[in-house]
Amino acid sequence: MTGFARYFPILEWGRTYNGGVLGNDLMAAVIVTIMLIPQSLAYALLAGLPPVVGLYASILPLVAYAIFGTSRTLAVGPVAVVSLMTASAAGAVAAQGTLEYLEAAIMLAALSGVMLAILGFLRLGFLANLLSHPVISGFITASGLLIATSQLKHILGITGGGDTWPDMLGALATGIGNTNIWTLGIGLAATAFLFWVRRGARPALMALGLKPRAAEITAKAGPVLAVAVTIIAVIALDLADKGVKLVGAVPQGLPPFALPTPDLGLVAQLWVPALLISIIGFVESVSVAQTLAAKRRQRIAPDQELIGLGASNIASALSGGYPVTGGFARSVVNFDAGAETPAAGAFTAVGIALASLFLTPLLFNLPIATLAATIIVAVLSLVDLKTPVRLWVYSKADFAAHIVTIGVTLLAGVEVGVIAGVSVGLLLYLWRASRPHAAIVGRVPETEHFRNVERHDVLTVPHVLSIRIDESLTYLNARWLEEYVLERVAERPALRHVIVMCSAVNEIDASGLESLEAINHRLADGGIGFHLSEVKGPVMDRLKRAHFLEELNGRVYLSQERAYTELARDDGAPASPPDMYEARGLI
Amino acid sequence: MTGFARYFPILEWGRTYNGGVLGNDLMAAVIVTIMLIPQSLAYALLAGLPPVVGLYASILPLVAYAIFGTSRTLAVGPVAVVSLMTASAAGAVAAQGTLEYLEAAIMLAALSGVMLAILGFLRLGFLANLLSHPVISGFITASGLLIATSQLKHILGITGGGDTWPDMLGALATGIGNTNIWTLGIGLAATAFLFWVRRGARPALMALGLKPRAAEITAKAGPVLAVAVTIIAVIALDLADKGVKLVGAVPQGLPPFALPTPDLGLVAQLWVPALLISIIGFVESVSVAQTLAAKRRQRIAPDQELIGLGASNIASALSGGYPVTGGFARSVVNFDAGAETPAAGAFTAVGIALASLFLTPLLFNLPIATLAATIIVAVLSLVDLKTPVRLWVYSKADFAAHIVTIGVTLLAGVEVGVIAGVSVGLLLYLWRASRPHAAIVGRVPETEHFRNVERHDVLTVPHVLSIRIDESLTYLNARWLEEYVLERVAERPALRHVIVMCSAVNEIDASGLESLEAINHRLADGGIGFHLSEVKGPVMDRLKRAHFLEELNGRVYLSQERAYTELARDDGAPASPPDMYEARGLI
Repeated sequence: MTGFARYFPILEWGRTYNGGVLGNDLMAAVIVTIMLIPQSLAYALLAGLPPVVGLYASILPLVAYAIFGTSRTLAVGPVAVVSLMTASAAGAVAAQGTLEYLEAAIMLAALSGVMLAILGFLRLGFLANLLSHPVISGFITASGLLIATSQLKHILGITGGGDTWPDMLGALATGIGNTNIWTLGIGLAATAFLFWVRRGARPALMALGLKPRAAEITAKAGPVLAVAVTIIAVIALDLADKGVKLVGAVPQGLPPFALPTPDLGLVAQLWVPALLISIIGFVESVSVAQTLAAKRRQRIAPDQELIGLGASNIASALSGGYPVTGGFARSVVNFDAGAETPAAGAFTAVGIALASLFLTPLLFNLPIATLAATIIVAVLSLVDLKTPVRLWVYSKADFAAHIVTIGVTLLAGVEVGVIAGVSVGLLLYLWRASRPHAAIVGRVPETEHFRNVERHDVLTVPHVLSIRIDESLTYLNARWLEEYVLERVAERPALRHVIVMCSAVNEIDASGLESLEAINHRLADGGIGFHLSEVKGPVMDRLKRAHFLEELNGRVYLSQERAYTELARDDGAPASPPDMYEARGLI
Repeated sequence: MTGFARYFPILEWGRTYNGGVLGNDLMAAVIVTIMLIPQSLAYALLAGLPPVVGLYASILPLVAYAIFGTSRTLAVGPVAVVSLMTASAAGAVAAQGTLEYLEAAIMLAALSGVMLAILGFLRLGFLANLLSHPVISGFITASGLLIATSQLKHILGITGGGDTWPDMLGALATGIGNTNIWTLGIGLAATAFLFWVRRGARPALMALGLKPRAAEITAKAGPVLAVAVTIIAVIALDLADKGVKLVGAVPQGLPPFALPTPDLGLVAQLWVPALLISIIGFVESVSVAQTLAAKRRQRIAPDQELIGLGASNIASALSGGYPVTGGFARSVVNFDAGAETPAAGAFTAVGIALASLFLTPLLFNLPIATLAATIIVAVLSLVDLKTPVRLWVYSKADFAAHIVTIGVTLLAGVEVGVIAGVSVGLLLYLWRASRPHAAIVGRVPETEHFRNVERHDVLTVPHVLSIRIDESLTYLNARWLEEYVLERVAERPALRHVIVMCSAVNEIDASGLESLEAINHRLADGGIGFHLSEVKGPVMDRLKRAHFLEELNGRVYLSQERAYTELARDDGAPASPPDMYEARGLI
């Protein structure tokens, strides 16, 4: 697709929409709706917001994604990690429960939406690459631990708080004496039930005669059952009077349409966390979308995904919601339930809208502890203890980035954690990039091949030094290049020629060129020739434009073989007498 | 040198110090002292500090560098760009002329000293690589323009201000009506004289019979002459009464020894500019030191240089000075005048100390305009208009980094300018690193070589796809790798085997490995074999540790030739009848 239509993927799949696809999409939408209702309430709680905000964030954003998104099966809405980040960012500017806190959450969605859309229009999706796999998995593990810990207070029925492990654990230690036994009972029972649903429900349903796929999908309704049963328990046992905290009155109706308060001070305070939420949300979403697309040999367009998620977040902000992104669990359910187009998402939105209109009164007696149990069971699957072991074995640098991300996230919170992870990863990368691989090479006897002198038995002559650089010459290694070449030269007093073999040099930037010029001048001062071999076509074109070749105190050879053969002959010995006479015109 | 002694280069050169070297060092010290006195006063003025602070910053820091520095000829002290950065940073926390402003400048020296020393001990000198040549030269050009503009107010004898071009030019436009004609006269005369000294003094002195080197060095005393003549003019014409601003009373004596006020609030406000000052100062200094060392076939140790400059800045802070670094002009003079060891710097320190003790009363009548003229003439040589043209021809990306650095520095000030330059450079680098060079290759007929199918006439078969990746597989290009391979596969329905040729892959990090695993799984799902060829030894060892090879749905071949030959034979046609019968046990 080209031009304007590129920004509206709905024009592509909408053209061939038909009854069969509609049936599949509707079926998937019903299943996802059932799954999404308790999840939306729970994640809003995790974000420190009234439960109804979770519902609001699950209506319009889904419609926006259906119009602008490129994944056929991604299910957008509130997710755990982004909810935690929202709590951390909004909590820094206002107290939970205040109007300012809600406004901050809405502003985060607005900022994040605008940022994602801008990144998409500027085609800056590649910036997500800055989050390496070890950093993402470390961040997700640490977030899972933080989220689970943050919900313990609801299971215990006490007050708590904090954005970091030390703060949360401190608050729990202080408050644990006030544990409400009824709340704890409901919380533990719900947690145990939901764990069983995850592990044991599918085999049990299959034993009852359900087909594997049906059993898998039915098991996803477990949280709805937990919600229903605990509501009934609250009413039957009159638990409200026994101190069990309930969701309480949830406003009935569709989300209010309103522009976020345009407060520049708030923007200044929230733009950094909004950017981090955008990037984390994008990476999470795009990974899910790519995995699912590959299974059906479809493709997604990452830059258009940015626009799709941006539109979703703007829609969320305009309807009183908070930041959303594509969630892993619900997208897999959507996919497994047979969703074929983003229309399934739009139908889910209708389902959630109906729930907001008619089901909210039923939620009055829902214990907070049930929602906390939903969250705990969902996020503990995010904690991955195998990755650190695997990374330790494979790469100490990647392990370091992983562990730093986990440690900093747990001890200093999600924002500092992401920044630290990206910084450590980038630092290690730049450190390696500033010390590229290079080797002194010699000729493999009786061949035209040149290999590392330290690893192979090769031929060299003392007056010619052949250096192979296994990396493009860029500003990150320009300083290194000068030092490396000049030190090797300083070690070899008999040297007359240096050949730099450029077979692996794909690019030479302006800093790399300046270093080559500096090397050329210094070698010329010392009466040493400076030659290049096997320079690639595009690199050569540029060197010509820069007039480097005119200044070069040597030659450019097509092959290393030819350079070596020719220069090895020039051993600095005086030419044979007849030639000398010839040269002086004596014969 | 190893161990403890590594941190004290003085132990190395001090061991062989003798009378001949002493004579040369003393001679150089006298010349540099004469040059440094007006420079120190002028740069202190540029930094918005009392002139005497410039002298203080030219005593102890030189002694500290003599002990810890590795360059034999680098001359440390106040320099133009760092002075401008100091003015910008200190001006953000206090008004010029207040005690708080002076304390901020001293704190900048202290913070910068500690940061440099820490970077040195941690061997993080490679971080200076983040400043590419185009960014540095853009920053220096813009700083030169800013500095020259900032001094125009002193030439005109009006009040002005601002840290950016728009502010400075606005203030000049407002104040130009109040121009003091006497000040303007002195300023223009001094500027014209100093320009002439730069260009015409050497030929004139040689015409008077001086040898070229002597003429060159004598010309460096031009600013001292300008100082002396304008002082005399002030006294003779009684210009103080005509509104010409003078340096006034300069405290006589050695610098006060004192610890900087330990103010954590100030540290929080100043650490970012202090870090930028450290890095810019280090890059400027190390470039000068490397250039001079190479001329005498000496070497410097960049990480120890960080410690040397750190010690200098700490010494500056302890003696009431402001941030210092190695300066280009004075280091060249020191080198040309014959300095052989850092002892020359220590002798220069003695010279400046004597000047502080005895010469300061003479400076009472020195016009500020003379110092401004010194600065303007010195910094206009920093403005380099050839580089943008050269960069435009050579590389649009490098040109963009250069221009952005110049533009942002002029419009938003030095700190934002450096940060913008580094960010743009890094962004462009990461953008390219996320789209590495790769090619589909085929066999050059009758050889064992494989080349890009788009550039050479090579042999391929439709059921084997050979891809050569010309880059290490890291987290920056991991996502690209998956997309690139899977898209190429999707285009070729007849495909049975994919070979990734790893001859240019020096490293595969954990993210790269995960992408290879993902590609392997997806190809396996599609019944396509996934093979690697020409994997380097260290990369292979790691892949073995990660058990990747056991999961690989294909083989690792030593050579691309062998992989291609073997896999090209497996064209998916049914095996010949006898084999099939054999396989089914029918015969």
